[in-house]
Amino acid sequence: MKLCMIGVRGHYGYVLDGLPRLPVVQVAGVSAGADGDDVTPLAAGCKAAGRAAPVFDDYREMLDSVRPDVVVVAGPFERTAEMCIEAFRRGAHVFSEKPVAMTLDELDELAAAYARSGKHLAAMMGLRYEPHVYTAWRAVLGGAIGEVRLIDARKSYKLGRREAFYHSRRTYPGTIPWVGSHAIDWIRWFAGGEFETVFARHSTRHNRSHGELESAALCQFTLTGEVLASVSIDYFRPDAAGTHGDDRVRAVGTEGVIEVSGGKVLLADGDGERELAAECDRQIFQDFVGAIEGGGECLISAADTLAVTEACLLARQSADEGRIVTFAQRSRGGA
Amino acid sequence: MKLCMIGVRGHYGYVLDGLPRLPVVQVAGVSAGADGDDVTPLAAGCKAAGRAAPVFDDYREMLDSVRPDVVVVAGPFERTAEMCIEAFRRGAHVFSEKPVAMTLDELDELAAAYARSGKHLAAMMGLRYEPHVYTAWRAVLGGAIGEVRLIDARKSYKLGRREAFYHSRRTYPGTIPWVGSHAIDWIRWFAGGEFETVFARHSTRHNRSHGELESAALCQFTLTGEVLASVSIDYFRPDAAGTHGDDRVRAVGTEGVIEVSGGKVLLADGDGERELAAECDRQIFQDFVGAIEGGGECLISAADTLAVTEACLLARQSADEGRIVTFAQRSRGGA
Repeated sequence: MKLCMIGVRGHYGYVLDGLPRLPVVQVAGVSAGADGDDVTPLAAGCKAAGRAAPVFDDYREMLDSVRPDVVVVAGPFERTAEMCIEAFRRGAHVFSEKPVAMTLDELDELAAAYARSGKHLAAMMGLRYEPHVYTAWRAVLGGAIGEVRLIDARKSYKLGRREAFYHSRRTYPGTIPWVGSHAIDWIRWFAGGEFETVFARHSTRHNRSHGELESAALCQFTLTGEVLASVSIDYFRPDAAGTHGDDRVRAVGTEGVIEVSGGKVLLADGDGERELAAECDRQIFQDFVGAIEGGGECLISAADTLAVTEACLLARQSADEGRIVTFAQRSRGGA
Repeated sequence: MKLCMIGVRGHYGYVLDGLPRLPVVQVAGVSAGADGDDVTPLAAGCKAAGRAAPVFDDYREMLDSVRPDVVVVAGPFERTAEMCIEAFRRGAHVFSEKPVAMTLDELDELAAAYARSGKHLAAMMGLRYEPHVYTAWRAVLGGAIGEVRLIDARKSYKLGRREAFYHSRRTYPGTIPWVGSHAIDWIRWFAGGEFETVFARHSTRHNRSHGELESAALCQFTLTGEVLASVSIDYFRPDAAGTHGDDRVRAVGTEGVIEVSGGKVLLADGDGERELAAECDRQIFQDFVGAIEGGGECLISAADTLAVTEACLLARQSADEGRIVTFAQRSRGGA
């Protein structure tokens, strides 16, 4: 299985982490994806994983020359959709950084290219594989809290000093689609329904000279069956805090409440309150390759990828325009 | 200082708890406040506190006969505003169950009666005195997290089997004003600004035959200076859980994050993460009497009481009507 990797701005580490489990995968080419980006760390990572690969200046030339089976996209945000579409047009499966599009028009184009391709698509929603989140989801899926009625999710990140491409909407999709996408994905995943409406707010104040980057945001969704969901996002986590992120997700159901919080999975139900042991022995890129080979299943489907991207972009639109956005107003493209 | 107490449907326990600290207060009369409500527990509570008091069938007769200095209102929700207004008209200070009004018209009438009276008004926002909440607020007030940018609050209650008056909007203000009022109060208190807009949702689904009682709700506020705030409310806390309520409040600031969660006050700032010792030696009704006597200060002012009631009612309106509500659209009455 021939793999090409484009770009060094995202979570290509998911792929490098998966390679030791995937002797079938040959890295046949890597490319920086943007003029000026340094491809060295990516090339070195492949070599360290025992898959040294030729470096290409132009990613399209690489795709045409190598004819890969799978393309990993982690290039500039503003070229993600274009790169995915180019890969689909050449008959490759696509494993991409999220969000997979910066605009709804791009998303529609990508959805159409995906639908025509007959190939697999998954976004790097790696936090579904985080053991605490995965354990909580499995419990909800198994009926531990009955029917889901309410979900609260949180993403709190350290801001640090971020590269220039984070400072502009031209090269950064906004904090809701970038940081919030994980939380928005958890909501739909845990609820098992579709988004119906969103209202969101965001603010760039006190972003420490990061241009247009929003330092805080809130989203409020409704999903099928009057399920309510909230997302809280901020870049104010102090540098001195123990971890980069403070991620939380809480699902309230008719028979119980489950919460991933502070490194624990806590369940309250008819038997009282207790902690669940967190575990996940799956790996996101291994799952993706397994799905391609037909023997396995990736936790993130193409429908998930497109629906969550749409939700991120509509939430951003709601916050930009100060109005409630209804999902049904938009046709769903190929999702 | 002569005190009259009306009603047995609210947190009159705050008054009983304060009496041992207040030898100056004489309970001069109690009344059930609603036909059919049993005044016995209230009368017994006063007696147990060494302040046995005569029982009156009609609260107005009691006010006219006793001419109290202070009136405590904890009667039916739908008569709260009326009772407060009757007390103000007779020149008494008022300590009332929240929300102090069921409608915006009632709130305006109450605000006008309060303004004319020159007396004190405070709602039973007793959770400001909860040691963890109070400690977190003091830290925020002292600058521990810099400028507040984002607040997330949660109220999760056991539903149990609730009396009939909880089942109808005629006799129950709704879950946002009843359960959510504490969280909405914390937000304004921690942020130190005024509400500007609200968008809210609620659902009655799976309320276990509790009529119109909403089982879940979400509110999203903006406050002065683009401060964002969310409230999550539900009645799905399992009966087997250790405590009746699972209350949380988290304030994110430019210099740190503070969170009241799981019986702890957790601060993350430039020095890392640590727990603060929770303490509060103040008592809400003692504070209220202290404010009347001129030597002390009640944490809850009349302005707080009226502003938070307005916020609760506008949030309910937003959820009922499915639209964003702007506070400036309404004149503030006497608030």
